[in-house]
Amino acid sequence: MQTLNLDLGERSYPIHIGQGLLQQSELVTPHIKGKSAVVVTNTTVAPLYLEATQRLLTGLKHSTVILPDGEGYKNLDVLNQIYTHLLESKADRKTTLIALGGGVVGDMTGYAAASYQRGINFIQIPTTLLAMVDSSVGGKTGVNHPLGKNMIGAFHQPQCVLIDTDSLNTLADRELSAGIAEVVKYGLIRDPAFLQWLDTNMDRLLARDPEALTYAIFRSCEHKAEVVAADERESGQRALLNLGHTFGHAIEAAMGYGNWLHGEAVATGMVMAAELSQQMGWLAADDVAYTRHILQRANLPVDPPTQMTGEDFTRYMSVDKKVMDGTLRLILMKSLGESIVTADFDPAALKRVLNREI
Amino acid sequence: MQTLNLDLGERSYPIHIGQGLLQQSELVTPHIKGKSAVVVTNTTVAPLYLEATQRLLTGLKHSTVILPDGEGYKNLDVLNQIYTHLLESKADRKTTLIALGGGVVGDMTGYAAASYQRGINFIQIPTTLLAMVDSSVGGKTGVNHPLGKNMIGAFHQPQCVLIDTDSLNTLADRELSAGIAEVVKYGLIRDPAFLQWLDTNMDRLLARDPEALTYAIFRSCEHKAEVVAADERESGQRALLNLGHTFGHAIEAAMGYGNWLHGEAVATGMVMAAELSQQMGWLAADDVAYTRHILQRANLPVDPPTQMTGEDFTRYMSVDKKVMDGTLRLILMKSLGESIVTADFDPAALKRVLNREI
Repeated sequence: MQTLNLDLGERSYPIHIGQGLLQQSELVTPHIKGKSAVVVTNTTVAPLYLEATQRLLTGLKHSTVILPDGEGYKNLDVLNQIYTHLLESKADRKTTLIALGGGVVGDMTGYAAASYQRGINFIQIPTTLLAMVDSSVGGKTGVNHPLGKNMIGAFHQPQCVLIDTDSLNTLADRELSAGIAEVVKYGLIRDPAFLQWLDTNMDRLLARDPEALTYAIFRSCEHKAEVVAADERESGQRALLNLGHTFGHAIEAAMGYGNWLHGEAVATGMVMAAELSQQMGWLAADDVAYTRHILQRANLPVDPPTQMTGEDFTRYMSVDKKVMDGTLRLILMKSLGESIVTADFDPAALKRVLNREI
Repeated sequence: MQTLNLDLGERSYPIHIGQGLLQQSELVTPHIKGKSAVVVTNTTVAPLYLEATQRLLTGLKHSTVILPDGEGYKNLDVLNQIYTHLLESKADRKTTLIALGGGVVGDMTGYAAASYQRGINFIQIPTTLLAMVDSSVGGKTGVNHPLGKNMIGAFHQPQCVLIDTDSLNTLADRELSAGIAEVVKYGLIRDPAFLQWLDTNMDRLLARDPEALTYAIFRSCEHKAEVVAADERESGQRALLNLGHTFGHAIEAAMGYGNWLHGEAVATGMVMAAELSQQMGWLAADDVAYTRHILQRANLPVDPPTQMTGEDFTRYMSVDKKVMDGTLRLILMKSLGESIVTADFDPAALKRVLNREI
């Protein structure tokens, strides 16, 4: 087992990564302050890992909420089902929520914890690669609104993150690839050497080699922890972690949440960011080709849906959280492995990218 | 004009109290960081004060959301109407929300600000006495759930609070009295001299004497600011501000939100807290009588609704936010002007009070 610490003063917490961690209750119980816990999971994950999770909670009063599976259910109505369960089971301010599942379960459970009785504790047990390397770490929680992704939410840090790499064995290939998109992201924004490692080891990752997966997860969490520790509430550099996300969120919203997986939309979005960076004269054509290449090696889509027009993109991108005083900021690449947050791009170049006139 | 500062480090903010403040845009504009604002108000307040509020925002891009009036609308569905307006009007992270109205508008607008894009700025312009002396100060925001009051929410401090005492001239008598309940509360929990002042000046308050009202508001805000500065997130002494609220919330929920005004339910709740304190041997019969007397002088109800049974109270009180690990804590009075937070009361005595067997 490897352990990282996300350093946020009194909100600091450990991230444990390794095989068989779901069997080690001593990793979880020190982080449960009261006498009760509520597990939130979904219909896909419950048959696989709920029993093991409940065993972690032996001796506590606990119950379970099982949500429908999918990004399409990450909304206020389903969130309200969690609140109703919490009230019916008399959860109080000392109750700890346990998020058992992928990014949707983690984001919704975290937001329920942020807002129930103005804030209670929670623990992340991510079961998808995407949740392990990205959404379970850093305290971003929330739900979608029909008019925009993650538009309702809070910063609320968990008490600990427990990453059992064994749970990747039951993950669908498509979900595994979607997670790799966020791993590649860390290489593209701040780690050219990791990008090279990923290029060399992509087949091992796709074959679920435990050693390769553990390294990729550890390195990703290290990057995430470093960036979040420096800028918890995204007043600056944390926005770099959103490389490809503004384009990607537009794809997810336009295509209907859940039709494109988040990681798939981000992969395509990162290629579009690379294309715009090339239009700005920052990336060479080879760098864009390399970005496409490494994502394609992970079986990820690299072209936006043909039915989306430039206007579709513009409409959804105009409500992005990185818009400030009406000005859109984007994450673009100065070189492979170095990204910046900037409002200083050529709108005509953006239009060419969105209209696929490049 | 008098100005108080609520001291919370980098989250500190001023509370301005005086006549005609809605005409003084220089009090508001320094606290608006971006170029846009959205006013949230209700159907009752909009015809009275929306125009003046919009004049405060001259030069900014601004729009308005008008909610239905009443505690019954303080729920997730109406909150979602605010989110929809914010997204449709392209509000971004630099947009400031302006809460113009009573406690319901303030709590909901504050919570919308806490959760929209994971947190944006807001300003409180309370127009009811209750909101001026209590809910607009201190950063408690939220909405009700059918199973419990204020069960969904966040701590989110405003950028400033603007209290224009002129707006009390249009307040209904019943609302004025409800506000006085929270003023009396400060006397009961921590200020016997203020209690005496209130007893002497009650008729002036009911007659809306501006000088008396300004003093009562200033003193109340001073108490609130002191308590909140010492315990922002209610890990201890802030709970004292909830004297009478656990009983009161049960009345509000059982009778249907809005049928009893919050201040009316709190008045009755404070009498019940006094009765239980007497049962515990802490208050004399005279002190309980005095508590009833001062609230009755403000035309407030001091007896629980006859149709509520002890079981009704118990059911609603079991989901109170002051329950910890299954144990109910209550605010009780050691003497007039001195209250404590305690789980150490006799359950049989509580039962007698709830069953009206005293």
